[in-house]
Amino acid sequence: MKKFEEKTLAEEKVFTGRVISLYHQKVELPNGNTSTREIVKHPGAVAVIPITNEGKIVFVEQYRKALERSLLEIPAGKLEKGEEPLVTAKRELEEETGYEAANWEHIQSFYTSPGFADEYIHIYVAKGLKKLENSAALDEDEFVEMFELTLDECLEELKKGSIHDAKTCFAVQYLQLLQKN
Amino acid sequence: MKKFEEKTLAEEKVFTGRVISLYHQKVELPNGNTSTREIVKHPGAVAVIPITNEGKIVFVEQYRKALERSLLEIPAGKLEKGEEPLVTAKRELEEETGYEAANWEHIQSFYTSPGFADEYIHIYVAKGLKKLENSAALDEDEFVEMFELTLDECLEELKKGSIHDAKTCFAVQYLQLLQKN
Repeated sequence: MKKFEEKTLAEEKVFTGRVISLYHQKVELPNGNTSTREIVKHPGAVAVIPITNEGKIVFVEQYRKALERSLLEIPAGKLEKGEEPLVTAKRELEEETGYEAANWEHIQSFYTSPGFADEYIHIYVAKGLKKLENSAALDEDEFVEMFELTLDECLEELKKGSIHDAKTCFAVQYLQLLQKN
Repeated sequence: MKKFEEKTLAEEKVFTGRVISLYHQKVELPNGNTSTREIVKHPGAVAVIPITNEGKIVFVEQYRKALERSLLEIPAGKLEKGEEPLVTAKRELEEETGYEAANWEHIQSFYTSPGFADEYIHIYVAKGLKKLENSAALDEDEFVEMFELTLDECLEELKKGSIHDAKTCFAVQYLQLLQKN
């Protein structure tokens, strides 16, 4: 789908970081005028909706420096270069929660902020959870605490604002739909 | 919620753009070690789930330079400085679809990419839609086409990948939940 395509007239790489890089572009609009675009490139990510045998979702609380607060989120992580998303998903679930899952289903992938970033996140549902005796360690700059919540508890945390990011709001809706079927 | 707080030891503003700005931080982790964080600041946004009297959602197709493709999205737009989100929502609905709505409900707000950005988006449901005879014009660098889809058509476009961003996937699940109640 290329409707209303904008042609790149010039591009400058403004920043290269550990996680993201930033580009500034001059573009030609569909009507021939020019404008500028600011574009963040991101390696892509996965997120997992881990559902316990009791129908609870497993969350991790972590500090988000961009927001200067912590959030309750579903387990997630960035793709390593060339890595299959499902491999990332299994690793992140283990590292962040100590669980492995017998059943994996890819339910959706989406762009998180298409207005300025190419971040693309693959969402999996993981069931048949089992605690590992010796689970892999977190990244050395990662600190999380795990919580398991029923749907009612999720809706309570949504109201209180502890659950507050797009993928996790999507996960709560997913559980609502699941429990209505 | 400040659990696992990371203290800012140093901060450099790397880029100031029309829409976003980028900061590079050195931080102190909860265990006393240091790391770096790359943070995009964004003015915040609104998105509207416009539901017609026939139960269809109104979408706009637009080109997303960050993805080099167009997407079918719910109408959305950035907050002007100091603007009430509901005011932005009404303006964006009118500009992008030519509709005004009699009934507005705020259903959720969420961060889109808490790992690297502070973008915060307010989601409204708009009902009682009425076509305006003379609707406000789009921004001069904005080109969109409008579509109205039933839930079944939404699910079809999801499968085809035309609907492919977080807020719009959330909107489709919202309609699914609405039609189950």
